[in-house]
Amino acid sequence: MNHQQLQLIDLARLVQGECVGQADLRLKGLASLEHADSTDLAFVNADKYVEQAANSKAGALIVTAALKEQLPSQHNFIVVANPYLAFAILTHVFEKKQQQRGIEITAQIHPSAMIADDAYIGHYVVIGENAVVGANTVVQPHVHIDHNVEIGQDCFIDAHVTITGETKIANRVRIHANSVIGSEGFGFAPYQGKWHRIAQLGSVRICDDVRIGSNSSVDRGALDDTILEQGVIIDNLVQIAHNVKLGAHTAIAAKTAIAGSTTIGKNCIIGGGSAIAGHLNIADNVTLTGMSMVTNNISEAGKYSSGTGLFENQKWKRTVVRMRQLADVPLTQVIKRLDHMQSQIESIESTFKLRK
Amino acid sequence: MNHQQLQLIDLARLVQGECVGQADLRLKGLASLEHADSTDLAFVNADKYVEQAANSKAGALIVTAALKEQLPSQHNFIVVANPYLAFAILTHVFEKKQQQRGIEITAQIHPSAMIADDAYIGHYVVIGENAVVGANTVVQPHVHIDHNVEIGQDCFIDAHVTITGETKIANRVRIHANSVIGSEGFGFAPYQGKWHRIAQLGSVRICDDVRIGSNSSVDRGALDDTILEQGVIIDNLVQIAHNVKLGAHTAIAAKTAIAGSTTIGKNCIIGGGSAIAGHLNIADNVTLTGMSMVTNNISEAGKYSSGTGLFENQKWKRTVVRMRQLADVPLTQVIKRLDHMQSQIESIESTFKLRK
Amino acid sequence: MNHQQLQLIDLARLVQGECVGQADLRLKGLASLEHADSTDLAFVNADKYVEQAANSKAGALIVTAALKEQLPSQHNFIVVANPYLAFAILTHVFEKKQQQRGIEITAQIHPSAMIADDAYIGHYVVIGENAVVGANTVVQPHVHIDHNVEIGQDCFIDAHVTITGETKIANRVRIHANSVIGSEGFGFAPYQGKWHRIAQLGSVRICDDVRIGSNSSVDRGALDDTILEQGVIIDNLVQIAHNVKLGAHTAIAAKTAIAGSTTIGKNCIIGGGSAIAGHLNIADNVTLTGMSMVTNNISEAGKYSSGTGLFENQKWKRTVVRMRQLADVPLTQVIKRLDHMQSQIESIESTFKLRK
Repeated sequence: MNHQQLQLIDLARLVQGECVGQADLRLKGLASLEHADSTDLAFVNADKYVEQAANSKAGALIVTAALKEQLPSQHNFIVVANPYLAFAILTHVFEKKQQQRGIEITAQIHPSAMIADDAYIGHYVVIGENAVVGANTVVQPHVHIDHNVEIGQDCFIDAHVTITGETKIANRVRIHANSVIGSEGFGFAPYQGKWHRIAQLGSVRICDDVRIGSNSSVDRGALDDTILEQGVIIDNLVQIAHNVKLGAHTAIAAKTAIAGSTTIGKNCIIGGGSAIAGHLNIADNVTLTGMSMVTNNISEAGKYSSGTGLFENQKWKRTVVRMRQLADVPLTQVIKRLDHMQSQIESIESTFKLRK
Repeated sequence: MNHQQLQLIDLARLVQGECVGQADLRLKGLASLEHADSTDLAFVNADKYVEQAANSKAGALIVTAALKEQLPSQHNFIVVANPYLAFAILTHVFEKKQQQRGIEITAQIHPSAMIADDAYIGHYVVIGENAVVGANTVVQPHVHIDHNVEIGQDCFIDAHVTITGETKIANRVRIHANSVIGSEGFGFAPYQGKWHRIAQLGSVRICDDVRIGSNSSVDRGALDDTILEQGVIIDNLVQIAHNVKLGAHTAIAAKTAIAGSTTIGKNCIIGGGSAIAGHLNIADNVTLTGMSMVTNNISEAGKYSSGTGLFENQKWKRTVVRMRQLADVPLTQVIKRLDHMQSQIESIESTFKLRK
Repeated sequence: MNHQQLQLIDLARLVQGECVGQADLRLKGLASLEHADSTDLAFVNADKYVEQAANSKAGALIVTAALKEQLPSQHNFIVVANPYLAFAILTHVFEKKQQQRGIEITAQIHPSAMIADDAYIGHYVVIGENAVVGANTVVQPHVHIDHNVEIGQDCFIDAHVTITGETKIANRVRIHANSVIGSEGFGFAPYQGKWHRIAQLGSVRICDDVRIGSNSSVDRGALDDTILEQGVIIDNLVQIAHNVKLGAHTAIAAKTAIAGSTTIGKNCIIGGGSAIAGHLNIADNVTLTGMSMVTNNISEAGKYSSGTGLFENQKWKRTVVRMRQLADVPLTQVIKRLDHMQSQIESIESTFKLRK
């Protein structure tokens, strides 16, 4: 994908790996084992892919020493401890990056805003009063950066992102297209059958190396701030409500919603389609599988799950009928009664035998 | 947050409260009990916050008369019947509002469109043929208002909102960033293994005081209109399908989806992550807790729920196995059989004793 | 809705139907049975609507021959085999289409991009290097078409859509407002407690006649492409992760998420709010009802479901307690024990009687 062609030896050095085979082989891209051709590099990440790797047309393979032993020696290799990590690193070599710098003539930037000389501000970007954009940050077309928003260095803000609510963004943050950061939280005081809007006065703080996918929403706090600590990664279509705090290096998969004032610890993994109620505390190192439903605090690290799983539809209908009966069936008592009756029967039987 | 500093007595008057303490105290903002300093006003909403309030550095506290009795008398107070409502009202005093009026030079407005003199039309807004924008309405940058769309007075339309499908919007409506109103409903006629698109000819009607969050979608009707009655409030990432009708003052939390032609009553509260099937009727005053799954009409007001809740993962796996057995276990019959066998055993035992 | 008024006979011809009644009746729109007036055409799709149809003020009714027999003969009719399909076809006659062609002066188009003469490029559209837009394609305001993106003929791309990641789009594709196609997939290699971003090098391929709703996200592949085959229809707020493959004519309702590398067959119907885990294979002709949770392959065509359904809240609370007990209650064993004890009791009783 990149016009620049690198030699196998150079790529091996970039990942501190051992180059085995034709060191001057020129590679022009990364590809899957299935689709790689002789100018592509592919990676093998587990024993189950050995056969596919052996048959791959890839010019070279990223492998562990143990995997290499299982593969024909005529292949070219980069041997590393962690092929998946090496692959992750090398994707950056072959990525086409936005190279432009400077401000497009059509960008509307308030005179009080401060834009670093080597930032890129795309066409039709609108930047408000006192906003700041740091060095080497790329702002794609149509982004709206509202007044008092601050963005650090080396960030990437994709098209149609809205950043408002005086959000402060640190360095190396990536926000993908059409996401909204700092919009008003869903705060209303109910009174006499109506909802009275609570203007949201808090903001959003996003720390270094955070990543937010496309079409996601992160609301500003009601009074205090919504906070995303360093290294948090968020997928697409995720809702982060006002005053949520996400601990460092927590990952949140697509279509998850986290309600207001919930705090999630560090290094958590939240599966896609989960919903976490408001005002909860989730400990560090919690993993939730997909579609988890969280309505209470989680104080212990560990793996948690929700849901019925999938049923063939007719069986599901019968199962739902049983679930409706479940509330009125004292399950643990059933077992106790069974045990008790069993011993009664045995007692009768033994008495019987004695009498014979 | 506001440069204007107000005296305690003025703020008390705004919420028809009693000012107790230093009437001329100047306050510059609202803050949480935890983060307030001596120039901030904070609110206390329940007995459980009394200790935190007693230790707060807030310059003054919004309280009920009963709460005031539990707090040290050296504090300054605004005493009201409903502190949360008073807080909601005062957030508007300290909110930074968009003060600009007029039309930015870069806005593209069709000559036939009617824009009130004291509206604000931001940079790069595009407004189509015969569209209308009412007095004091703020339209932020990059909004697209398509032909024949009408927007009333005192509305706020945030950046990147798309309004199409000849949507009619009344007064004091707020639509947050990147939402889409009036897009085509998901209507297709299946025929011979293919989907035949049904062009959507209905529209969307949004009544007074409706609020829609960011990244939400409200589709135009197929023939008749999709209708949001007055005072409806909708959170982020919510899907409202074609021909849905939402009754007045109903609240819908984030990531909920309501399928086509469903009617929801007045004053309902729909928890986040819920999904409501199409062609249903939901009564007034229905509350659904988060992740509710609605596949039938709800004719009685009340609170309803779905879902298994959260399990430790290993226990969940065992539970799912049992759920798969549930369809074939006649639960209510188990209890009847237990009762029947119990009486058989007792009958045998008593016969036994008689015979001894 | 259309200024052009068509005669009943013309409309009947368009759907290869029989015109019964006043052939020269001029009709100006389609409407529901409930709201139609004498210049509207309405359709009747089932016996249950016969009474409503008999009382409708519609100028003419689209019916089957069987339905016509049940209706008063003074009505005007278009008689067809499939009224719903005929209705779908006629919606296109009354739809107001975007008639404009050409490039708005404010569009920013890279000199290397190729735009067909009879395409429409709206205000403030930004089109990158080497991008292609085919004949008769309509690109609404504020769309961003990034470098190397290709769009075929007769497509409709609504406002604020972002198309990036070198996506290739075929013909007659419709993408509704604020959707994001080709954004970066959620790929990270975990290493020493941090997430290492995997730059996404694959693309998105969208085949003929695909339809994507508003606020949806389709991510580019990691190495290979994400693929949407011909005739796929997708609703609003749907997440399609990297390397997903959707088979031809599959329909996906709102708020569904499909995780990475999952392949879904042809002619599937995925209910709204469903979540499908990654790396799965779903067969052709699978139907999932709403909120389905899929964590395993589905190898058989058929209908599948998940979830507990909806409970009155107090009953749900008791049900959840029972579900927590379920893991430790050997349900199938309970039935066996009951059967066994029953036979023991019967044996005792019969012995008893014998001894009497």
